[in-house]
Amino acid sequence: MAVRALVFDVFGTLVDWRSGVAEAFRASGAAGDPEDLADAWRARYAPILAEVNEGSRPWGNFDDLHLVTLDDLLAERGIDLSVEERRRLVGAWHRLDPWPDVRAGLEALRRRHVIATLSNGHVALLVDLARHGDLRFDCLLSAELARAYKPEPEVYLTAARLLGIEAGDLMLVAAHPWDLAGARGAGLRTAFVNRPLEYGPGAAARADPDADESVADLLELSERLVG
Amino acid sequence: MAVRALVFDVFGTLVDWRSGVAEAFRASGAAGDPEDLADAWRARYAPILAEVNEGSRPWGNFDDLHLVTLDDLLAERGIDLSVEERRRLVGAWHRLDPWPDVRAGLEALRRRHVIATLSNGHVALLVDLARHGDLRFDCLLSAELARAYKPEPEVYLTAARLLGIEAGDLMLVAAHPWDLAGARGAGLRTAFVNRPLEYGPGAAARADPDADESVADLLELSERLVG
Repeated sequence: MAVRALVFDVFGTLVDWRSGVAEAFRASGAAGDPEDLADAWRARYAPILAEVNEGSRPWGNFDDLHLVTLDDLLAERGIDLSVEERRRLVGAWHRLDPWPDVRAGLEALRRRHVIATLSNGHVALLVDLARHGDLRFDCLLSAELARAYKPEPEVYLTAARLLGIEAGDLMLVAAHPWDLAGARGAGLRTAFVNRPLEYGPGAAARADPDADESVADLLELSERLVG
Repeated sequence: MAVRALVFDVFGTLVDWRSGVAEAFRASGAAGDPEDLADAWRARYAPILAEVNEGSRPWGNFDDLHLVTLDDLLAERGIDLSVEERRRLVGAWHRLDPWPDVRAGLEALRRRHVIATLSNGHVALLVDLARHGDLRFDCLLSAELARAYKPEPEVYLTAARLLGIEAGDLMLVAAHPWDLAGARGAGLRTAFVNRPLEYGPGAAARADPDADESVADLLELSERLVG
């Protein structure tokens, strides 16, 4: 059976958060290595989402959660930044560049498939990223619409429901095995896209042997799905 | 204060439902005047949405509700159509052509504003319409995301919340004064776009003296908002 629609993880899969956030740290004048600060900020992402999913923290969107994790990080490192600078850093997540294959890859995929985001980022953030990168989707879907974060099954199932299709006709495209495993658990098909530079040069290689497709970029995925 | 984002009603405002639905009745071979059947089907729209909003009917999306109102209409007229033909008629609402100014008008407006749908139609239906008409939005918003139908305030407020802006920074663009009044009640700004052919030639003229803008088409709206 052919896949009817594709949903894309965004941070790391479509956009290069590390370069953009490191650049924002550099511009802020914060003491410390900008890439290291970006990595350390991002490392606080999974734990705080887990708190929301477990119910030990109330719902907050990415701007809310990024501000909390940034405050924690800066406190831990003893880095002093103004409220204004902190806001600018949180805003940097709205202006991240896509990986070089993404714009053309999405266009190629959109010819035969409905394509949408499926990000833990909230809708307003996704609007800004899509406009910044000139990325055209058929619609933007977000964990915000399920009021739960990936990898909770409800997020993937909400996407299938809103697209009006069965979970088995929907494919998640992501660079993160934990996300793909969550999608498979909800009955979706999965495509692993390799983003070796997500955590910078020299980061550990990733793979997902359980994915239906494993590709180097979105153009390769487009060719595979035609086949 | 400048408007930050625009949301668009879809049926009648952006797409010509009457021609498309009449054409589908013609193709179905249903006895009766196709335009009259289209009008009579559409006339059952507001009452059934009101039933959902009042809680006397459980939530159903546009495909569900269109099937109910079609069955009622055909029964009332004594018209016999197969289940297959009824499905095809419900599907006709997914393949309606935009009015001639819409594609270029949206592109012009998108240069300066975030633009989204805000339709009572469900997300999957809006995806099909946007693809059919090659209409580019920043995102698709629907009453489905609020689980209530316009003109309930929650629908308009959900749109503002998802776009991350205040209601007063959001403008609804619609051809229907009842919808614009609902938006104003929720604190939005409003633009009336005149669609004199929505109900066919010779239908009563509409206007909305309370709208912030009243325009003949989306290109005129784009010029007004620049000024």
